[in-house]
Amino acid sequence: MAPNLDSYFKQVDDLAESFIDRLRKAVAIPSISAEDARRPDVVRMGHFLADELKALGAHVEARPLGPQPHKEYLELPPVIVARYGEDPKKRTILVYGHYDVQPAGKEDGWATEPFELSIDDKGRMFGRGSTDDKGPVLGWLNAIEAHQKAGVDFPVNLLMCFEGMEEYGSEGLDDFINAEAKKFFKDADAVCISDNYWLGTEKPCLTYGLRGCSYYSIEISGPGQDLHSGVFGGTAQEPMTDLVRVMSSLVDGNGKIQIDGLNDLVAPLTDDEKALYKDIAFTMDNLYESLGSKTGIFDDKERTLMGRWRFPSLSLHGIEGAFSAPGAKTVIPAKVIGKFSIRTVPNMEPEDVDKLVFKHVDKVFKALGSKNTINCTLQHSGKWWVASPKHWNFTAAAKAVEKVWGVKPDLTREGGSIPVTLTFEQATGKNVLLLPMGSSTDAAHSINEKLDRKNYIEGIKLLGAYLHYVSEEKME
Amino acid sequence: MAPNLDSYFKQVDDLAESFIDRLRKAVAIPSISAEDARRPDVVRMGHFLADELKALGAHVEARPLGPQPHKEYLELPPVIVARYGEDPKKRTILVYGHYDVQPAGKEDGWATEPFELSIDDKGRMFGRGSTDDKGPVLGWLNAIEAHQKAGVDFPVNLLMCFEGMEEYGSEGLDDFINAEAKKFFKDADAVCISDNYWLGTEKPCLTYGLRGCSYYSIEISGPGQDLHSGVFGGTAQEPMTDLVRVMSSLVDGNGKIQIDGLNDLVAPLTDDEKALYKDIAFTMDNLYESLGSKTGIFDDKERTLMGRWRFPSLSLHGIEGAFSAPGAKTVIPAKVIGKFSIRTVPNMEPEDVDKLVFKHVDKVFKALGSKNTINCTLQHSGKWWVASPKHWNFTAAAKAVEKVWGVKPDLTREGGSIPVTLTFEQATGKNVLLLPMGSSTDAAHSINEKLDRKNYIEGIKLLGAYLHYVSEEKME
Repeated sequence: MAPNLDSYFKQVDDLAESFIDRLRKAVAIPSISAEDARRPDVVRMGHFLADELKALGAHVEARPLGPQPHKEYLELPPVIVARYGEDPKKRTILVYGHYDVQPAGKEDGWATEPFELSIDDKGRMFGRGSTDDKGPVLGWLNAIEAHQKAGVDFPVNLLMCFEGMEEYGSEGLDDFINAEAKKFFKDADAVCISDNYWLGTEKPCLTYGLRGCSYYSIEISGPGQDLHSGVFGGTAQEPMTDLVRVMSSLVDGNGKIQIDGLNDLVAPLTDDEKALYKDIAFTMDNLYESLGSKTGIFDDKERTLMGRWRFPSLSLHGIEGAFSAPGAKTVIPAKVIGKFSIRTVPNMEPEDVDKLVFKHVDKVFKALGSKNTINCTLQHSGKWWVASPKHWNFTAAAKAVEKVWGVKPDLTREGGSIPVTLTFEQATGKNVLLLPMGSSTDAAHSINEKLDRKNYIEGIKLLGAYLHYVSEEKME
Repeated sequence: MAPNLDSYFKQVDDLAESFIDRLRKAVAIPSISAEDARRPDVVRMGHFLADELKALGAHVEARPLGPQPHKEYLELPPVIVARYGEDPKKRTILVYGHYDVQPAGKEDGWATEPFELSIDDKGRMFGRGSTDDKGPVLGWLNAIEAHQKAGVDFPVNLLMCFEGMEEYGSEGLDDFINAEAKKFFKDADAVCISDNYWLGTEKPCLTYGLRGCSYYSIEISGPGQDLHSGVFGGTAQEPMTDLVRVMSSLVDGNGKIQIDGLNDLVAPLTDDEKALYKDIAFTMDNLYESLGSKTGIFDDKERTLMGRWRFPSLSLHGIEGAFSAPGAKTVIPAKVIGKFSIRTVPNMEPEDVDKLVFKHVDKVFKALGSKNTINCTLQHSGKWWVASPKHWNFTAAAKAVEKVWGVKPDLTREGGSIPVTLTFEQATGKNVLLLPMGSSTDAAHSINEKLDRKNYIEGIKLLGAYLHYVSEEKME
């Protein structure tokens, strides 16, 4: 039975202006987690959310996380956890979002004040945090309010987990989730996160996979201190010369990883999977537009999407310790640290990747016959995540998309990582769904971040509809 | 006839404390040319020199150089030119030095206050500028004073050119020298520069050659802006991947330049020249000590000295535009600029070097088949310089060394460049001699710069003795 959502949808439309006003209030709080001086604003934003939730009748707790690692003089902002509804006959859905934002200032090039919501005649609502992630977080609150005002029974028990440090590495959150998995979050039947974006601007998607990331450093050192290239050039083995050779051995210009055995770890591509990419709403022009150039590796959509989602990639990020300023400096750097990372995919176990990387780097460096010293280390790694898009959590969401937007959603993966996704899956043992509200042009993290009015309002309908469908979907 | 220098030498010994006091006054003026706020101190140092010279009876002019290029709000410090003696029967020697210094601060790690001359029990006189180049500059003034007080006739007419911007690229000096070559400097019969160092700590040297330097940038760009490696890794051709490949094609780990045709430009090594290196006072331990490691290319002294002086070298200095800070950042840089330089030697014409570099970079990049864009440019170049050590200017200096230090000097070249050397040679058409006062351990440009008391006092004798011998040496 498809739930009757009409009165809920109508109520969302009726309340649209007040929902936009709620977003305006939230955007006005500059909750920048990366800036020490803004910490009180981050905390204020947490309390704003908590107060709004309490006003809606939710049970709310602001959970302290203690002092911030490496910045012990700062207290981490609280995790706002909340429960709305405690009906044991209903399913319980756990949702996650974050109330902190990236830094922003008019001087960075914003066309409008970043902390004032500015709506243009195309319905684009500009403001820091509008799409990442205040709009989606408020979406859940708005859904509750619209149900109340429409007199429609809320279909699930809703558990909420809103953090204030996502843009600064989600400090302290993993431990919190693990600790609460069998406590505050214990009733969760499934998890939904609205903190990513459509692949394009026209078609909604559900996201079921993320790549992992293993980040490495290669340190090569020789002389006791930086040298003058006039005095020592031609007499000393130079660490930079070795480093560029080792770095150039890792990947070719078409992104093919040259590390022995690494590609063997990748799950084979099946014909079934291959067929999936054809129908995804994505064009090469989408790629070129976002690249700002036509310097893509592949000329076709399918291989481009696979290159982004389901194959590993290796990027060279830069070199620490060498001359990096504009101008000319005739230094021979004594110690240089090359940085690169590998985006990982099923079935690459991070430990296996590490072993192959270290072995390769060791082999290439040995072949150079250098007297310099090398040390290759893992800086950090996060594992890939892939969920089953056939799970009832996803089929419910797909029905909600079709109801609200009139199209079947694309089933997508992402090339980047949202580490909290895997944490929730592992801690709760439940399926996790990524259900985006905004579109690819929202410019999260950039200047002129925006959320389209349509994506916000229809997104509120979508979140509510998802809760209805997920309350009824047959568990398999 | 060897000139009788005994009374001059004795006078130098008698005046030693007052000469050290003169150096103390000079070191106390923080004439840092690279720091805007210190410009008045640089000018004050110029006037200090001018006043001392006037008190000695020299004709002195402080010549303005106009506003500083790219910093028009700053007036360049004046060139202090002076003439001591106008006897048409005497030879005229032009000497050059600089009165500005490198930046220095106690917080950099100095053991003593950098702008207070501190003499330890080994006679090491610590202070910024002590050896580079205030000690040698004052050496000329001290030589004049000691002649006067000893009642010994000054053997030459002395032209002096002391600049205040040497540590900041000698802004404006080339034009000045060229303009004055047939005016203030027109009587010069030879040129002497005391602004370099012994090869070691025990044996004096005369320096007759310098390598040139051609500095290049390789800019590779692709995307319109920096990219997130999660979103774009595996779909975009990355400029860094191309750049490390191009950079790794330039030179191997043993310093062998891989640019086609470049080594063919180098003057062949003759047996005569080869034999010269054997007797130079230099050991591999000298190299290892200055390197702070045993990561030299060669295991023998001869090839090490040749690698430093008479063969070209290529150093990779770093990359602009990539991630260069500590930590981890998953950026794909959109535009990266690799920096490298080639130390050039006879007979490499800079224009020929440029052509071969551009051709090589172009060839290697084309072979990559990249869609990115490359632009390789010359940032600056300065030509190598080699004088004849058989010129009377050198034979006179060699006699002076033997008289003062009791040993024949090593005839050395240097791996670095002192561009003003070639400028003086080309502008005046006269032989230029590099006659160092300090030793290899003086740490010019580093913390704890010093000049040994012995090198200062014997150095004053050396400069005076040189003027005596050069006044009599047979011109050939």
